[in-house]
Amino acid sequence: MTRIAVCAPSTPLTREDAARLTALAAAEFPEARLVIHDQCFAVEGHFAGSDAQRLDALVECANDPSIDAVWFARGGYGACRIAEAAIAKFDRTAQDKVYAGYSDAGYLLGGLYRQRIGRPVHAPMPVDLRREGGEAAVRRALGWLCGQGAGHEEPSLAAERHPVVAFNLMTLAMLCGTPLMPGLAGHVVMVEEVSEYLYAVDRLFFHLTAHLGGVAGLRLGRVSDVPANDRPFGMDAQEIARQWCDRHAIPFLGTADIGHDGGNRIVPFGLAERGQGQ
Amino acid sequence: MTRIAVCAPSTPLTREDAARLTALAAAEFPEARLVIHDQCFAVEGHFAGSDAQRLDALVECANDPSIDAVWFARGGYGACRIAEAAIAKFDRTAQDKVYAGYSDAGYLLGGLYRQRIGRPVHAPMPVDLRREGGEAAVRRALGWLCGQGAGHEEPSLAAERHPVVAFNLMTLAMLCGTPLMPGLAGHVVMVEEVSEYLYAVDRLFFHLTAHLGGVAGLRLGRVSDVPANDRPFGMDAQEIARQWCDRHAIPFLGTADIGHDGGNRIVPFGLAERGQGQ
Repeated sequence: MTRIAVCAPSTPLTREDAARLTALAAAEFPEARLVIHDQCFAVEGHFAGSDAQRLDALVECANDPSIDAVWFARGGYGACRIAEAAIAKFDRTAQDKVYAGYSDAGYLLGGLYRQRIGRPVHAPMPVDLRREGGEAAVRRALGWLCGQGAGHEEPSLAAERHPVVAFNLMTLAMLCGTPLMPGLAGHVVMVEEVSEYLYAVDRLFFHLTAHLGGVAGLRLGRVSDVPANDRPFGMDAQEIARQWCDRHAIPFLGTADIGHDGGNRIVPFGLAERGQGQ
Repeated sequence: MTRIAVCAPSTPLTREDAARLTALAAAEFPEARLVIHDQCFAVEGHFAGSDAQRLDALVECANDPSIDAVWFARGGYGACRIAEAAIAKFDRTAQDKVYAGYSDAGYLLGGLYRQRIGRPVHAPMPVDLRREGGEAAVRRALGWLCGQGAGHEEPSLAAERHPVVAFNLMTLAMLCGTPLMPGLAGHVVMVEEVSEYLYAVDRLFFHLTAHLGGVAGLRLGRVSDVPANDRPFGMDAQEIARQWCDRHAIPFLGTADIGHDGGNRIVPFGLAERGQGQ
């Protein structure tokens, strides 16, 4: 039995999202026990409830001894407003859990990884059910959380000897220099992006690569739904990533099979535990 | 006679922009001699020519002993790609000049201020002629460059005892932690933004305020053309700025009369030189 608590540190789920998730898990993952925190449905402005509501729900899930994994419901923005204060309230019980999500949830994954709390994991989230291929993405996350293991992980991990992390590019750029930023020396850093102009991707790489001294290398996930600008940028996302890596002598290691899409693979932070899931 | 060189470290001007600028200056500022570098009209992808072209033109203007002020033609993105390498090539002649612009030109203003080269000045740019109220903005910049002085400056400067800087919020957030970022301890920091969602403004304040330890305070310029999101954010820009300042014990000092608009006032970086223009 894997006991998974779902909370929403950023933006809300709908009851319909939750019903789909519960039905899929009940039908296909009898070994999972899902506990969807009511805070997932709270709404205050942009967010899934006030900062205090989101923080309290997250701390409650993290410190609950009956829970094995905390799964972030959805990104969209908001986790950075509560991450530092929430993590400060995590107790000993929170140390042994998996924390799974991506996109805006990266603020939490980063902060937890910095403090070596539990196992942060880049993984699809419940809200992905809304996208094309989203059921496959959610199955992948649930399967990994239920210990089905390495078959769901990003393919380069099988041969990777360095510790790894995976982030949304914007999220990692915003983490730089904050109290949530983990030390990434010696790591392979994977980044992906969605819905940003290529000039904004270039700008984010300018910023991020100035903060990645000592990393083992960078892999580029998918850069999708790039808006059309009034003129072509003149480089694609991979050329942009390569250029900025070159400037800072960061090895560019190629692509990563992650992104804001149904194909988004699992990246457990840190060193691979060979032949195991979590 | 004030000899002003115009170059484009980011995106290009049109010949029509340049003709309007030249006509306005000739009619109203006979004491200004404008030299519009041909590189302003170069186009390569997003940029006003290649990185090498933009860098060479900027260095040429900065190191030209016959020039008093270098005026950046336009923002739009690109200056961060060349700023560090360009400034490294500035010679003694570059030390005595004014450098004027805003928005994406902030990467250069920041890098120059860090190295105490010349006088960086937040000021309207030639491309502002395209906007409503743009002629007034360009007159303000030309007037200040021609020594007409403090009447064009941001109003709070008259009583300000701390050194000041002014930046686009995104630009300053991206500067943080890079080799272009000036030390801002003891400074009043003014920021303005355009065309960003309020959640993105909040995210930028999360990042920026984590890097502003020791500043004397923050003033908020206009946050304009905010796109409509699928739901209200729940706070306005000033509430966002206040919240993040409060978290980091940064005094929030109120508004600043700067922004991506015709009313954008002049902010010479550093300590005011009372009763003078440049």
